[in-house]
Amino acid sequence: MNLVFTEKHTENVGLSIGVTRQLYSGQSEFQLIEVFESEDFGRFLALDGFMMLTEKDEFIYHEMIVHVPMAVHPNPRNILIIGGGDGGAVRELCRYKSVEHIDLVEIDEQVVQVCKEHLPTVASDLDDSRVKIHYEDGLRYIRRFTDYYDLIIVDSTDPFGPGEGLFTKEFYGNCNKALKEDGILSNQHESPFYPLDASAVRQIHKRVITSFPLCRVYQAHIPTYPSGHWLFGFSSKKYHPVKDLDCQKWEELGLKTRYYNTKLHKASFALPTYVEELIREVE
Amino acid sequence: MNLVFTEKHTENVGLSIGVTRQLYSGQSEFQLIEVFESEDFGRFLALDGFMMLTEKDEFIYHEMIVHVPMAVHPNPRNILIIGGGDGGAVRELCRYKSVEHIDLVEIDEQVVQVCKEHLPTVASDLDDSRVKIHYEDGLRYIRRFTDYYDLIIVDSTDPFGPGEGLFTKEFYGNCNKALKEDGILSNQHESPFYPLDASAVRQIHKRVITSFPLCRVYQAHIPTYPSGHWLFGFSSKKYHPVKDLDCQKWEELGLKTRYYNTKLHKASFALPTYVEELIREVE
Amino acid sequence: MNLVFTEKHTENVGLSIGVTRQLYSGQSEFQLIEVFESEDFGRFLALDGFMMLTEKDEFIYHEMIVHVPMAVHPNPRNILIIGGGDGGAVRELCRYKSVEHIDLVEIDEQVVQVCKEHLPTVASDLDDSRVKIHYEDGLRYIRRFTDYYDLIIVDSTDPFGPGEGLFTKEFYGNCNKALKEDGILSNQHESPFYPLDASAVRQIHKRVITSFPLCRVYQAHIPTYPSGHWLFGFSSKKYHPVKDLDCQKWEELGLKTRYYNTKLHKASFALPTYVEELIREVE
Amino acid sequence: MNLVFTEKHTENVGLSIGVTRQLYSGQSEFQLIEVFESEDFGRFLALDGFMMLTEKDEFIYHEMIVHVPMAVHPNPRNILIIGGGDGGAVRELCRYKSVEHIDLVEIDEQVVQVCKEHLPTVASDLDDSRVKIHYEDGLRYIRRFTDYYDLIIVDSTDPFGPGEGLFTKEFYGNCNKALKEDGILSNQHESPFYPLDASAVRQIHKRVITSFPLCRVYQAHIPTYPSGHWLFGFSSKKYHPVKDLDCQKWEELGLKTRYYNTKLHKASFALPTYVEELIREVE
Repeated sequence: MNLVFTEKHTENVGLSIGVTRQLYSGQSEFQLIEVFESEDFGRFLALDGFMMLTEKDEFIYHEMIVHVPMAVHPNPRNILIIGGGDGGAVRELCRYKSVEHIDLVEIDEQVVQVCKEHLPTVASDLDDSRVKIHYEDGLRYIRRFTDYYDLIIVDSTDPFGPGEGLFTKEFYGNCNKALKEDGILSNQHESPFYPLDASAVRQIHKRVITSFPLCRVYQAHIPTYPSGHWLFGFSSKKYHPVKDLDCQKWEELGLKTRYYNTKLHKASFALPTYVEELIREVE
Repeated sequence: MNLVFTEKHTENVGLSIGVTRQLYSGQSEFQLIEVFESEDFGRFLALDGFMMLTEKDEFIYHEMIVHVPMAVHPNPRNILIIGGGDGGAVRELCRYKSVEHIDLVEIDEQVVQVCKEHLPTVASDLDDSRVKIHYEDGLRYIRRFTDYYDLIIVDSTDPFGPGEGLFTKEFYGNCNKALKEDGILSNQHESPFYPLDASAVRQIHKRVITSFPLCRVYQAHIPTYPSGHWLFGFSSKKYHPVKDLDCQKWEELGLKTRYYNTKLHKASFALPTYVEELIREVE
Repeated sequence: MNLVFTEKHTENVGLSIGVTRQLYSGQSEFQLIEVFESEDFGRFLALDGFMMLTEKDEFIYHEMIVHVPMAVHPNPRNILIIGGGDGGAVRELCRYKSVEHIDLVEIDEQVVQVCKEHLPTVASDLDDSRVKIHYEDGLRYIRRFTDYYDLIIVDSTDPFGPGEGLFTKEFYGNCNKALKEDGILSNQHESPFYPLDASAVRQIHKRVITSFPLCRVYQAHIPTYPSGHWLFGFSSKKYHPVKDLDCQKWEELGLKTRYYNTKLHKASFALPTYVEELIREVE
Repeated sequence: MNLVFTEKHTENVGLSIGVTRQLYSGQSEFQLIEVFESEDFGRFLALDGFMMLTEKDEFIYHEMIVHVPMAVHPNPRNILIIGGGDGGAVRELCRYKSVEHIDLVEIDEQVVQVCKEHLPTVASDLDDSRVKIHYEDGLRYIRRFTDYYDLIIVDSTDPFGPGEGLFTKEFYGNCNKALKEDGILSNQHESPFYPLDASAVRQIHKRVITSFPLCRVYQAHIPTYPSGHWLFGFSSKKYHPVKDLDCQKWEELGLKTRYYNTKLHKASFALPTYVEELIREVE
């Protein structure tokens, strides 16, 4: 294969993927948006050169950021997604009949357009009648809500570039305020392995723990993300991510998942010792 | 960095690592042995172009292949390692005072020599008085033992090249025979993600389940292995990997680990749905 | 840069070019056609993964394949280009007012369409009224002409794939037949450096010398072609490429060139000893 | 091949060479010295990551920097090489019986040691009795000579790093002073193609023309140097590089060369128009 996309995980480490075609390349107001086609990962989306999702393994990320809080919350009806313009989190949420409304706050309209056109299996439910898309900065959007959402999903890019504001203390404080008294926040939490990513993990955790009484980190295997070891955050005002999980109730929903299951749900909160230590450093 | 080592994960996907120096390159009777130095992973060992271990993340693999069975077996004294000429599994085992004897059966003497010279933090305990190294084919070695070992660790290379025999039905049958009636086998079990690796997972599991009454698969995050998602097998004649784990007893040993802990031990047997399905296909 | 196009020069040697965008990718009846945009070479065209031309250095190839024979022939009016669907050779020819007619025989219509759209500075003169494009196999086209052209330019791809027929003995014989009694043939002649390319040089020369009384090889520096050392053939029934060059006449045309000049014209036929020997092997 | 050496020609363009082994890597007082083994180029030497020579194509560089001035000068007996610690220029010079003495001024003794050990076909004549090696800065060495050498060969690295001083006006002035009244200076003159290299060409030429009455640039095809298009300088107090070439006399020496020949000698001074213009800009 002559054309290769490489994502640098560190200055000298990279994952290289042979590419059959570039399906889209465009500079939006916020970032360079590219969609590629590959034999091994199907189509994939890159923002400013960082892989956001691939058709082959996006199910892992989206199932884990959505079903973990959804299986804990007893009655999640009104949901906010910040970021997530690709539609993957929306798709997983729309599988729940109990969900009444989803606000999707995506700063970059072009991301949504591109995903609708080139990643239809991910963006499949963006036109669901329960979904309302707001093209707006999440940091600003969140300020105006109090005691409003059952669940907030922060499906952001990395803590630099357009997503930067979503990693501030102010942002998490406002998320808390916008959540109902039994609300839950789930967020992508970077990777513990490479030093720069690990420092992002510390930074996010440090900020989120000042805003929520209960904060836990859980993990998943995502092959196309740096190191393949990815973390998520579960923060809540009331519910415990494992003790308040009602396995039977979730299983009765009959949702077919490919990565998530309730045993894994519980297991995903058991972290390797070095990751535990990384997080405890800032507690 | 001008010099880059790339391991192909599939024909068109590769992990590339900038290399500061090649410390060793030699063709043994069995394989090409190379040791490199890198900024991100410290030194690393490659056999026939496949990364076997790096100083930075080898602790994950070696802790998981050793401590999981060691924490379950109530009294593991006589242990066999097949493969593992780098000494990483030996090092972890030697931390247990209760271990009386370790037979290390490594087909390639040159691997042991090279690791002793260039990877001293991994090979550190190969000269421990309890360790006896046999430079021999593991498949042949195992045939002559009956009811002899408490624990067998199959720390092999991939199921092609010199390690091929360690993936046969005959081999696992002989492992069963060589184990005492409460013996445990742990083995590296490849990765579930890329199709070729996944077919190796199926093949190993298919063969091991015909030889042991209890076979479970557990997982870890190993950044430098293909997809970062790696599996291990736990097979036994008697003990269950989770129910028979005595957490308190293991914790009282006071072993400082960086990846393994008893909560993670239990969690590592909860697999993603797609991995469960992969394994069940052959059960 | 995340996206890199690599052309393999041998199995283990490649030239890698960072790519800002893929402008076109399409599989024609004959080959994979791609156009890329790069910072260093501007846009470039690749056929089946081999770079055919870049905006930055195509002038070298096209000036050398066109002006060398044009400066020797005293009155070239009726010209045939075989291959060359990109339009670069046409563009150089159209600068001569004396040229009355150009037949361009390109097997792949899609190449012409793509170059017109994405490489306008190369394809600029394909719509010149003197140019007639025939979408046809050059090998077949040439058979029906006798004593007809003043100059034939064989601007072919490499001697495998759709261009294969243009490297046969039959083809060169028919070129001779199609040329007038003072006609000239110029052709791209591959590179003398890498062994596989060098064997192509030998093969072409071996075939062309059986068809023409005078065959000379000349060279140029083309950075994006394998080794940067590229050869061309000058074959004729009558004119000598150096002795029959009328420098003054050509200079009086006032054509502004960036690579070609009459001193270089003469010099380009002085070959390195190892190239001389390569060619003489088959004479 | 898993191990690849890449030399960046620009920020986004690189030549990649599969490497079978690294034979040497050491940081000297001046630079990182590496020797690699490859299938396509045999062994090759890199200084600070830049390829200095390969066994496969070093003959081109060394023949052209040595035989061009040697074939023009009627009686070159006392010769100075500045740089050239690999021994390639010495080897070519030692083939001339008329040469009585060669001073080799190499700043980095470790380069000489490494080349003697790992590149014996290049360093073959460094122990010739006519050769005296001075481990010293060429810029300083040259200051103390007046009217002393017949030929000075500046076989330097690129105009940054330890070789920097060899690209100053002062240096060329001192070379002029150190040469006899019919002395010749030949020097490596970088590549005209990529913009940064082209600006080095201009800079060198600008400095050398202020020190010598006659300065000409000549070219060669060197596949492993950036763009494959490499320039050399011929500067003299008296002799013209073409008019004063006595072809017959040189041919009678019976030296077997692989790139150089007297026809090519003359031809190599005919430059592409864009290179002519590049040089004339500073004249």
